[in-house]
Amino acid sequence: MQSLELLNEHACFGGVQRYYRHASSTIGLPMRFSVYLPPQATLAPVPAVVFLAGLTCTEETFMIKAGAQRVAAALGLALIAPDTSPRGAGIPGETDSWDLGVGAGFYLDATQAPWSAHYRMESYLMRELLPLVGEHLPIDARRLGIFGHSMGGHGALTLALRHPGAFQSLSAFAPICAPTHCPWGQKAFNAYLGADPAAWSPHDASDLMAQQSVVPYPQGILIDQGLADGFLETQLHPERFEAACAAVSQPLTLRRHAGYDHGYYFISTFMADHLAHHQRTLSDPAPGRR
Amino acid sequence: MQSLELLNEHACFGGVQRYYRHASSTIGLPMRFSVYLPPQATLAPVPAVVFLAGLTCTEETFMIKAGAQRVAAALGLALIAPDTSPRGAGIPGETDSWDLGVGAGFYLDATQAPWSAHYRMESYLMRELLPLVGEHLPIDARRLGIFGHSMGGHGALTLALRHPGAFQSLSAFAPICAPTHCPWGQKAFNAYLGADPAAWSPHDASDLMAQQSVVPYPQGILIDQGLADGFLETQLHPERFEAACAAVSQPLTLRRHAGYDHGYYFISTFMADHLAHHQRTLSDPAPGRR
Repeated sequence: MQSLELLNEHACFGGVQRYYRHASSTIGLPMRFSVYLPPQATLAPVPAVVFLAGLTCTEETFMIKAGAQRVAAALGLALIAPDTSPRGAGIPGETDSWDLGVGAGFYLDATQAPWSAHYRMESYLMRELLPLVGEHLPIDARRLGIFGHSMGGHGALTLALRHPGAFQSLSAFAPICAPTHCPWGQKAFNAYLGADPAAWSPHDASDLMAQQSVVPYPQGILIDQGLADGFLETQLHPERFEAACAAVSQPLTLRRHAGYDHGYYFISTFMADHLAHHQRTLSDPAPGRR
Repeated sequence: MQSLELLNEHACFGGVQRYYRHASSTIGLPMRFSVYLPPQATLAPVPAVVFLAGLTCTEETFMIKAGAQRVAAALGLALIAPDTSPRGAGIPGETDSWDLGVGAGFYLDATQAPWSAHYRMESYLMRELLPLVGEHLPIDARRLGIFGHSMGGHGALTLALRHPGAFQSLSAFAPICAPTHCPWGQKAFNAYLGADPAAWSPHDASDLMAQQSVVPYPQGILIDQGLADGFLETQLHPERFEAACAAVSQPLTLRRHAGYDHGYYFISTFMADHLAHHQRTLSDPAPGRR
């Protein structure tokens, strides 16, 4: 059994905000993550929602800026926030760019040297971190939702589609919806997955959705997008994901909000709606039903 | 008329979060502050609550960590957060300590060189910033509340008692209640006000309260204090303020919360209660009545 090192904890809305570090065998380095346990978790395991953060963020960003704990406490949901990349891999140049390397793991397993030795965020999350929290914390690993922001929205959409049954609910804030068609995605995929775009499509949420033969999330996907988001035109392409959902009859609520930008003031404004969206599915008395 | 430079703005809970810079004549340097305007401010001037932050914080800390905008939007309150000190005064050593100098202005006017030339936060707030926001923004300067955290709790309590009539409502999170009796206060007062403790008492909230001849806040003062706060025993002394309030019949609700520490997870948990406390007085149809 792996051990978790509790770095610090803080009472918050009747529950507890915790920061952990552990030696990740998948990454080959120490990794940090944060967990919010609502007051209900002292009585029985609770469902959880995983939040994947965007470029430059850490396991702390969501927990200090999003205002999610208040809602999670009211709904009886745990929150899990991993870091956005390995740290300390020692790869030359890994801290030179804010959109590649440290803080920019893109929630996939790199196949290309020098990244492939450590940059394995997909396997880390799915095969190591989520089993670990289910084992050590009062979290019901059969009732998991996932959401995220920007690069983490890409992560949420792609992991939810690449791992059927792992998550029961899905939403995103301003996600990178078609990374094969935007500069952020092309730069990262070229470095992590190689120059052949054939290797990119399995990590493109719009491509993945277009290939679904059954509706993957029949209870619907929620996406919020600000129309004053400076990255909307060049990087995000929600219309591509919208078209892919329509083509396979996946219910999608894509809300476009005038005036809102790409940051946490936007995210916090609509946080309660997202957690309520997850709770509607995660409170289902037949967990895991799909 | 002074000019305000709008640095950036963000839609948030139907209102707008703004960051400003202006050339402060009182400080003699550029100063930054942040304002949240709720949606109601587009129709008519709204009451506002000033938040004074603690050691090491800036005008941004409260706005990103406290989760206050959601509540302010619901109640129709503006929020105003100044910085915690001058920056760039060039005083030797001003950035050497986290509890003196930059980030540690203590919301008073220094009388001692070299601090006295720029460290004039009390005059800055009362005679420059608050008139400025009342003049330039849709804020009803006759309906102001004040609150703060730690050093900023000291600031809120002392400014509210030193400037009768300026604020209609008052609360604090884990305030430094008796700075003349704690290391933080003694260090700061010795530097800013000189070695004679006779000059300190007018900036000690408990001393100020003990000297009141009429009840200054008849609608009550709200203070929240965490019992797992590592600074409680050595720095905060709420029992001294409690005794002073009792002696002059000032209504005080001092809530001691088991398990809560000194940080923003604590503050965010009780934020809604504080803004509701302010709103009860600030919504009074006879503003300014005391």
